[in-house]
Amino acid sequence: MSEEDKTLIEILEENNPIDIIKYINFVRAPKCGAIATFSGTTRDTFDGKAVVELRYEAYVPMAIRCIKSICTSARETWNLNLIAVAHCLGPVPVGGTSVFIATSSVHRVDALDACQYLIDELKATVPIWKKEVYANGEVWKENSEFLERRTEIGENFQPGPFNSSRPRASPKPGPLNRSSEKKGCCGNKVRVDEERSNKKNDDNTGIHQ
Amino acid sequence: MSEEDKTLIEILEENNPIDIIKYINFVRAPKCGAIATFSGTTRDTFDGKAVVELRYEAYVPMAIRCIKSICTSARETWNLNLIAVAHCLGPVPVGGTSVFIATSSVHRVDALDACQYLIDELKATVPIWKKEVYANGEVWKENSEFLERRTEIGENFQPGPFNSSRPRASPKPGPLNRSSEKKGCCGNKVRVDEERSNKKNDDNTGIHQ
Repeated sequence: MSEEDKTLIEILEENNPIDIIKYINFVRAPKCGAIATFSGTTRDTFDGKAVVELRYEAYVPMAIRCIKSICTSARETWNLNLIAVAHCLGPVPVGGTSVFIATSSVHRVDALDACQYLIDELKATVPIWKKEVYANGEVWKENSEFLERRTEIGENFQPGPFNSSRPRASPKPGPLNRSSEKKGCCGNKVRVDEERSNKKNDDNTGIHQ
Repeated sequence: MSEEDKTLIEILEENNPIDIIKYINFVRAPKCGAIATFSGTTRDTFDGKAVVELRYEAYVPMAIRCIKSICTSARETWNLNLIAVAHCLGPVPVGGTSVFIATSSVHRVDALDACQYLIDELKATVPIWKKEVYANGEVWKENSEFLERRTEIGENFQPGPFNSSRPRASPKPGPLNRSSEKKGCCGNKVRVDEERSNKKNDDNTGIHQ
């Protein structure tokens, strides 16, 4: 089974909720003793404001390319069997799942640590934007971790699995030495002018610049 | 909502498979942005031998008491909203889930790190035993992490969330200072002689001693 067959990445168009069991069953395998998952869900408040829903947009080919890249990095770092990553586009109501990651491995440390790494990297490097819809307005938000990573890049930062801002759990010692050789695919903001020009009533605050 | 209402612990009798969605939905909440889960599944090989299934036994009241204790420790260490822990008894076939943990929190670091802590502590301190059933025989196994912890206790070890053998991901600095004050409920092997005496054809290799 090739690495590609062992990795399922889906960016789901509007009104296709994430089928968690489908992805858990994708990573389940007889040789594995562990499955770790992470669900990102819409919170009802942000900075003290009542959130009605979040709406996600992505330049899908680039988002998939970036997610593939971080999955490859994860496989270089941990002993993983199967990986599934799904992200919704369109509106996600309060309590709903917008992103889901599942990893499987023989021993649990690999699945658990890789799952944590994958969501950290996804938030920091994958070009998916969200609009926060409040009771009294809405605003496009760039993920703060994306901004941090961009700032780091501006300071000659090399994107890689061990360069994000918080420490990792139990990484294998080897890959730490390789981080200076690695480059993420989406370390800087992707220009999607054609999407912006097609977008009507865009109240974008500078995300698709 | 009391801490007790926010924690669901279930030890499932034989032939009651773990309903993963039930536990994920238990921890899902409007105020949370993150759900982390861990599934422990039966591997098809162990030490090069083909495994047919695992069979679990527990002294249920003590197992529940111990799981409650580690959930309380987790809440003292991370900002968690809801926790669910389920463990099967009886046979679990290859690929099946024997243990499932779900945690939810406002920010993902808490759910992810607590989930990892909970499975580490469950394996190391909760009195649940497994029989590995191979194609050509079967053997009761004490979890190696349980044995390690017992050895540590023999060396005047204080059970607590930061005393297990591998490093934690991003713990808050505070609780590290409290570890010497903490005691797990099940740091040493539980005596369940009455269960042993009721057990027929017991090929136990010294687990219920």
